[in-house]
Amino acid sequence: MIHAIQLAKGGLYSTSPNPRVGCVLVRDGKLLAEGWHVRAGEGHAEVNALAALAASGETALGATAYVTLEPCSHQGKTPPCAEALVKAQVARVVVGMQDPNPLVAGKGLARLKGAGIDVVCGVQEAAARELNPGFIRRMEGGRPWLTVKSAMSLDGRTAMASGESQWITGPEARADVQRLRARSCAIVTGVETVLQDDAALTVRPHSFAEDTSGFWRQPLRVVLDTQLRTPLTATLLQGGGAVLISTVSQDQSKRQALQNAAAVPVDFIELPQIDSGLDMSALMDELAARGCNEVLIEAGAALVGSALAANLVDEWVVYMAPCVLGSAARPLANLPLQAMAEKRELNIVDVRAVGSDWRFTVKPKSANVEKD
Amino acid sequence: MIHAIQLAKGGLYSTSPNPRVGCVLVRDGKLLAEGWHVRAGEGHAEVNALAALAASGETALGATAYVTLEPCSHQGKTPPCAEALVKAQVARVVVGMQDPNPLVAGKGLARLKGAGIDVVCGVQEAAARELNPGFIRRMEGGRPWLTVKSAMSLDGRTAMASGESQWITGPEARADVQRLRARSCAIVTGVETVLQDDAALTVRPHSFAEDTSGFWRQPLRVVLDTQLRTPLTATLLQGGGAVLISTVSQDQSKRQALQNAAAVPVDFIELPQIDSGLDMSALMDELAARGCNEVLIEAGAALVGSALAANLVDEWVVYMAPCVLGSAARPLANLPLQAMAEKRELNIVDVRAVGSDWRFTVKPKSANVEKD
Repeated sequence: MIHAIQLAKGGLYSTSPNPRVGCVLVRDGKLLAEGWHVRAGEGHAEVNALAALAASGETALGATAYVTLEPCSHQGKTPPCAEALVKAQVARVVVGMQDPNPLVAGKGLARLKGAGIDVVCGVQEAAARELNPGFIRRMEGGRPWLTVKSAMSLDGRTAMASGESQWITGPEARADVQRLRARSCAIVTGVETVLQDDAALTVRPHSFAEDTSGFWRQPLRVVLDTQLRTPLTATLLQGGGAVLISTVSQDQSKRQALQNAAAVPVDFIELPQIDSGLDMSALMDELAARGCNEVLIEAGAALVGSALAANLVDEWVVYMAPCVLGSAARPLANLPLQAMAEKRELNIVDVRAVGSDWRFTVKPKSANVEKD
Repeated sequence: MIHAIQLAKGGLYSTSPNPRVGCVLVRDGKLLAEGWHVRAGEGHAEVNALAALAASGETALGATAYVTLEPCSHQGKTPPCAEALVKAQVARVVVGMQDPNPLVAGKGLARLKGAGIDVVCGVQEAAARELNPGFIRRMEGGRPWLTVKSAMSLDGRTAMASGESQWITGPEARADVQRLRARSCAIVTGVETVLQDDAALTVRPHSFAEDTSGFWRQPLRVVLDTQLRTPLTATLLQGGGAVLISTVSQDQSKRQALQNAAAVPVDFIELPQIDSGLDMSALMDELAARGCNEVLIEAGAALVGSALAANLVDEWVVYMAPCVLGSAARPLANLPLQAMAEKRELNIVDVRAVGSDWRFTVKPKSANVEKD
């Protein structure tokens, strides 16, 4: 199973909206074949493993299949994998976790058992779940897994008062951010960040090529731009994945001009507003509906503060640089709390050095508690 | 030598203004006796080791003495140690580092060599120096070793806007601060901290009793209080070490009232003011003149900012709690920088978990560069 989990990671940057899945076929203690899901529309892990086995001239008769996720039972873009395992006459299927997809949710296991196959589910389940936080969250809760990335100084500042922020962290931390982007289906930013930093918010595969066999896709870029202030010359319009601009502006000529100026597809969406601005949870619902498993926020203090205030943040990755930007500089998150009793508690789940910076992986304690 | 260094640490909380020193006497690979300096006015490490040996009925004839610091050559409160070693007829003296005290500075080594003793200096020198950062700084530069202690949230905030700050960090971090206090000769704070937190700034030995054989002393408390606003009821007047109030107020009746109200000696000092308030470097000179080796600042953002701005900070110990206090809360340091080019660069020399908090030991890169 551990090997199957490693195989699944081959699809870390490419399987979405599908989950990352790995499969190993074993007989008499001998590895027969292996497979993993590469991208949507192509073969699932089990089918790829069976195909590899067939290509080697072997059969799976009496073999054990180790699969990180319950084999599917439904006809999707590809035929059901449970059926394929039954047809291949495997004797035993060991599964990491049940499929949270309501279309499957145990039906794949039932199909296998119904065919007389010995089925075990829940082996290395924690590691199997860790492969797909976004897919699981979306299937179980209708929301993407939301990660916020911040880069700050020791004194918790993300930019000078002027907005100047390049660069707080070093090249190693910025390469690490590339991996966060690459695994995300969408990157959400605010128009202020576009105006200030003119960030591309693209994946540059050379910066994480050591991690993958080369399968990757550019994430959707989502710009929160109420008044449609995104400049026609913005770098993020020049390449990368599609751009989705959330706006309430009805300026059709600006919309058209943005689409004309862009080298990538640009679309617009009007989302509900609440007192403090955009309704972030409506945005998350919309991105889940578009098949986004993992969403990354890379933005300024306002947007980060809104996401924290709305209790939407599943994971906060904070890079801390060895410097002081001072008390006039911009805060980590706009969150005007007044009393100690209001402080937001966090679990720091991982701390490590990344170049000369330090990376904190943090889970807000109140996250997902108040979700409707 | 490693053992001698460990012995020296017995005096971590008690030797000042003297240095921490350990001594081991060895002959034919056998440990004869050991000693360390406990407190000023009492026996030095070498003398204590020789006395322990004499008490056991042995002599040091032909032995090797391992001493963490060059044996003194001058008559102080106790007779010179170099002389005692010569008299004891040791064959060899292995020394961690030369004494930075200009009264010694090689003269002890010369006296030993002159008596025909084999002398080696500089063994485990880095570890020997680490025993006495304050003593070395004071002897070499006329300044104490200045440590700043801060407790902050992940977003770099040290208190709510109201000043409320109890407690950001957990009990383990606060116990760790006790060790910082215990090794310090003086603790410097601002009157705002006295008014807001009413902190005792005392050493509570039960919180670090695991670290010491029980020798410790209360540090001097220094309050920067230009207008003499320290309340007569302040907890820090009720016990602990002496209090030194730096003020420009000539209100003799308030001075007298403070002294009357206090259970500890209270003294006043008038130090030069500069544009931004008190001249911090004048304060450091004054504390060095009073024999302070290590000085700890425990204060709010204003004083921490002044110390950083004056490039006086040798070491900054920052405890980071797993919480967010928000953008209205008080900053880590009042340091109103405007451009990225002005950022203060740091070396993070140690990061470790302390309870559920994280402790960063930081050395400002520009520290001691611009000292006059």
